[in-house]
Amino acid sequence: MRKISESTVRRLSLYLGFLEQFAAQGQTTISSAELARRGGTTSAQVRKDLSFFGSFGKRGLGYSVPELTSRIRDILGLRRTYRVVLVGAGRIGGALIQYPGFRERGFHVTAIYDRDPKKVGTGWNGLVVRDVRQLEADLNREPSDIAIVVTPATAAQDVVDRLVRAGVKAILNFAPVQLTVPPDVVVKSVNMALELETLSFALANR
Amino acid sequence: MRKISESTVRRLSLYLGFLEQFAAQGQTTISSAELARRGGTTSAQVRKDLSFFGSFGKRGLGYSVPELTSRIRDILGLRRTYRVVLVGAGRIGGALIQYPGFRERGFHVTAIYDRDPKKVGTGWNGLVVRDVRQLEADLNREPSDIAIVVTPATAAQDVVDRLVRAGVKAILNFAPVQLTVPPDVVVKSVNMALELETLSFALANR
Repeated sequence: MRKISESTVRRLSLYLGFLEQFAAQGQTTISSAELARRGGTTSAQVRKDLSFFGSFGKRGLGYSVPELTSRIRDILGLRRTYRVVLVGAGRIGGALIQYPGFRERGFHVTAIYDRDPKKVGTGWNGLVVRDVRQLEADLNREPSDIAIVVTPATAAQDVVDRLVRAGVKAILNFAPVQLTVPPDVVVKSVNMALELETLSFALANR
Repeated sequence: MRKISESTVRRLSLYLGFLEQFAAQGQTTISSAELARRGGTTSAQVRKDLSFFGSFGKRGLGYSVPELTSRIRDILGLRRTYRVVLVGAGRIGGALIQYPGFRERGFHVTAIYDRDPKKVGTGWNGLVVRDVRQLEADLNREPSDIAIVVTPATAAQDVVDRLVRAGVKAILNFAPVQLTVPPDVVVKSVNMALELETLSFALANR
């Protein structure tokens, strides 16, 4: 198979969201034009993105919603479930864990860690907050694919080093810091302050 | 002044976060090497980024933490406060509004809207949830710089069209949808499902 760029992966993920909405409304076929309109792109781009799966849209009839959904789920690695650990028992983590679609797409949060003794042992969205000192011991016993890091900036790199040594291969980082990881580990960062500051910069420099 | 790229703006925002931490620890000077180490970049890149402000680091002494903080705050448009309205009274919004640094960087959430009659009129983080039908009337009376959109995907474009017509020039979007806006409006999108799916894609295609 040809190599798929990150921008294509991001569009496929968007299309999947639209397809799930169409399916919920009982729609069974979809045109590249409609996907393009929703995705803010062109029909040609949609057809190019979907050509990664080989040719299966029918000219004039569009794509089958269930078939296209299924193929995109395959490509995005959504056929299986992922064990997710969350480090940092705060509000962002709470919002994420209750995000609709998080669990239905196969992301199962299996453990939550914090270093605050006042939080450790308390209930949190159906889980019990564990002491972050247990991290390595727990991951040895129950390996995890993905970690979500929602710690203060100063603690994040240390936590990530420990997660990587314990075999975690994918990290979603909310701490406002640039992380260093080995080449076989993938990190995505979401930085709220930074997004807001690109907006204030744009407003100040128009 | 030379044009500053978005990647430079993003690094300046990161440096600002580090400088605030250094200041809180009582540190008064900082080297480009230390900023580079924290930011996951090189000293040469840091010096290049900071050269946008003219020359003011002292060779061998590094940069003054308060002076550099002040200059970066200028460039990022953080000298003033921004009125922010939030559309969608959910968990993500609640996490954002209580994000440390949100208010101290001058982002003041002045109103929160929802269309759910069960939420309208109830208290929410010190504000009262308003009916989204009031949006235009309120924005005419109390103009706002920035809107944060945390609606379902299907509602987001309509809400954004209304915000834009009411004069909002910068939008931070959490709805999993691609938004269309006029060229004088800036949009940044944060899509949690998409970030997780780029991770599952990376895990499935190694």
